[in-house]
Amino acid sequence: MRVEYINPFISSLSNTFSIMAGVDVQREQIVMKKDSSFIHEISGVIGLSGRAAGAIVLSVSEKLALRVASKMLMTEIKEINDDVLDAIGELTNVIAGSAKSELEELHLNVSLPNVITGNSHDIRFPSNVTPICVQFSSEWGDLALEVGLEDVV
Amino acid sequence: MRVEYINPFISSLSNTFSIMAGVDVQREQIVMKKDSSFIHEISGVIGLSGRAAGAIVLSVSEKLALRVASKMLMTEIKEINDDVLDAIGELTNVIAGSAKSELEELHLNVSLPNVITGNSHDIRFPSNVTPICVQFSSEWGDLALEVGLEDVV
Repeated sequence: MRVEYINPFISSLSNTFSIMAGVDVQREQIVMKKDSSFIHEISGVIGLSGRAAGAIVLSVSEKLALRVASKMLMTEIKEINDDVLDAIGELTNVIAGSAKSELEELHLNVSLPNVITGNSHDIRFPSNVTPICVQFSSEWGDLALEVGLEDVV
Repeated sequence: MRVEYINPFISSLSNTFSIMAGVDVQREQIVMKKDSSFIHEISGVIGLSGRAAGAIVLSVSEKLALRVASKMLMTEIKEINDDVLDAIGELTNVIAGSAKSELEELHLNVSLPNVITGNSHDIRFPSNVTPICVQFSSEWGDLALEVGLEDVV
C-alpha cells in the first residue's frame, strides 16, 4: 500500500469523530501492521473498490463505543446494543466515504459496513497486503484505524 | 435485498468449493438472517460496490478450513495458520468475483477480503439491511454464506 493513501483516512477519522460525536481524537503511533494487537472489542469493517481495492477497519473499545453512540443518538446508552453497533458501522462508513473523495483519482466506491464483536476477535488482511495501522487516543478511550489498499493492476 | 441476487452467490460457492477444494457442498436452509447463529469459527468478509453496495460473509468451521486449505495447498495442515486464513480469504474473494460476473447489470467491484477469527465472534450488517443466509453441509463440515446487497439509489 502506498503510504500517501493513509493521510486522507487519518484526517477523515479526526473530522468524523469531531463532527458526529463531538470528541477530539489525537493521533498516536503509525505502524505497518504485522500482528493484531490494536484490535479493540468492536470493529467496523468496510470494503473499498475501484482503481484500488481494499478495506478499512475502525476498532474501538466498548467504553468509547457507548460514549460515541450516546452522543450521536442524544441519549445515554449503558450497554452494547444494535444502536451502538449501527453507530460504529455508520462512523466507519462516513470515514471511508469522506476519505474516498480526497482520493478521487482512485474512483473508489464503498461497500456496506459490517460490525464485528467478540472479545478475542482478530481481523486479518491477506498476507500479501501490509495494512497501515494508526492508533488514536481520546478522553473517552483508545481507538485504531487500519487501512489496506492496493492499486488494481 | 432482492432475493434474486442470492442465486449467483449460491452457485458460485458450490462451484468454487468443487473446483478449488475438490469438495461437494449441499445447500441446506435459506433464511433471512436476524441473528448470528450461523457464524462458525473462521469468517471471510469481502465488500461489493457499484450500482449496489454490500458484503458477503463466508463462515466455516476450523475443521473444514483445515481440510480445504490442505487440499488447496496440496499439503496436510494440522493447525490454523496464516496459510489457512489466506485460503479462506481467497475462497471468499473467488466466490464474490464469480458471482459479480453473473450480476453484470450491477457493475460490481470487489474489495479485499478480511478474515475474522475468534471463537465467539459475531458479524453484523447494518440494521436496515436484512442479509440472506444460506447454510451448506459437506463431508468435511458445515459452512454458511451470508449476503447483504442493496441497490444504490
